[in-house]
Amino acid sequence: MLDVYAFSTPNSIKVLIALEELELDYELHNVNVRQGEQKAPDFLALNPNAKVPVLVDSSAAGHRFILTESAAILVYLSEKTGKLLPVSGDARFRTFEQLFFHASGLSPAFGQAGFFQRQAAEPQPLAIGRFSSEAARILGILNGVLAKNRFVAGENFTIADIAHFGWLWRREFAGVTLDAAPDVARWFTEVGARPAVQRAIRRVTALAPES
Amino acid sequence: MLDVYAFSTPNSIKVLIALEELELDYELHNVNVRQGEQKAPDFLALNPNAKVPVLVDSSAAGHRFILTESAAILVYLSEKTGKLLPVSGDARFRTFEQLFFHASGLSPAFGQAGFFQRQAAEPQPLAIGRFSSEAARILGILNGVLAKNRFVAGENFTIADIAHFGWLWRREFAGVTLDAAPDVARWFTEVGARPAVQRAIRRVTALAPES
Repeated sequence: MLDVYAFSTPNSIKVLIALEELELDYELHNVNVRQGEQKAPDFLALNPNAKVPVLVDSSAAGHRFILTESAAILVYLSEKTGKLLPVSGDARFRTFEQLFFHASGLSPAFGQAGFFQRQAAEPQPLAIGRFSSEAARILGILNGVLAKNRFVAGENFTIADIAHFGWLWRREFAGVTLDAAPDVARWFTEVGARPAVQRAIRRVTALAPES
Repeated sequence: MLDVYAFSTPNSIKVLIALEELELDYELHNVNVRQGEQKAPDFLALNPNAKVPVLVDSSAAGHRFILTESAAILVYLSEKTGKLLPVSGDARFRTFEQLFFHASGLSPAFGQAGFFQRQAAEPQPLAIGRFSSEAARILGILNGVLAKNRFVAGENFTIADIAHFGWLWRREFAGVTLDAAPDVARWFTEVGARPAVQRAIRRVTALAPES
């Protein structure tokens, strides 16, 4: 049995897309981060870092396995099923390269750009400029990758596409458009049209019906 | 043949530690990021993202394999040698969990804390507070992990320890001390005493002799 603790967030949707793509059964638990539920004692027992998503695999050999960090969960689900992560060759390491480029580059730039544009208690112009231009720069790098390949790690859809899709799906929060990134736009349309991705979007947005 | 393009930075040292731990031969190329050498055309041909480190493996089957993102390079070197990344079991996914916790959490918090404390053109008090408190919060999470385990992914030294060590080694830049994180301090002393880590520190600091 797989239990997923999630909300309608860029990182949560990644795990739902993978579960839907891999046709795994799971139970979805709503952790409303707008109401601070990620700081409740029950949730902190799952993830002391107070972040969604969390995966709990009760079918793991002999014990309940709790895993945090969306990209680590993607690797876990790939290895559990033998899908969406090439087992060898260049494409394997292009997948890891893009997973870490997303985690260390795109995700923090988009997240901080959105925070300083929308949520900071006072305007911090230098911070707004820093993160907005970094988000645009990183989008340009990703566009260069997608100008050469159908998917971010090569010719096949992998968990690295799922990771990038999470934040591109919520790019409006970061003030990012795809106007200057035609290859990202082409890729986003293709990935977004996948039936599993559409199912994941429906399930995750239903967690926050007012949004 | 392995060529490494690096400087005396938190991300570069991770790759050198892995190479020294794994006893792999490599040639080290200095990319002085203080002088902007990461933006030179020759380097951008290796990494359009303009960041060190980069690994070039000329011993790969039939071609020259260029890989960016320090954590992806750690995974690559581990799989090349069969060391420092458990091949199965909980410890394998704890290693990935910590690699992504480092990439998406610790590394950006430390990097932005240092930037706003030391390098911003004007003081941005809200940004300083945001990233300094996030760096302290994340250090507390890591301390909780190390209160339970000898190393960050369990009882064995892995590439996740190498990743965290990179930024802990440069914690002064981020204004972070280990005073309130005794288990991180204990771990830092143990990891820092490893002969391979000491060799890597010597080689990487020699790239910027004035520092």
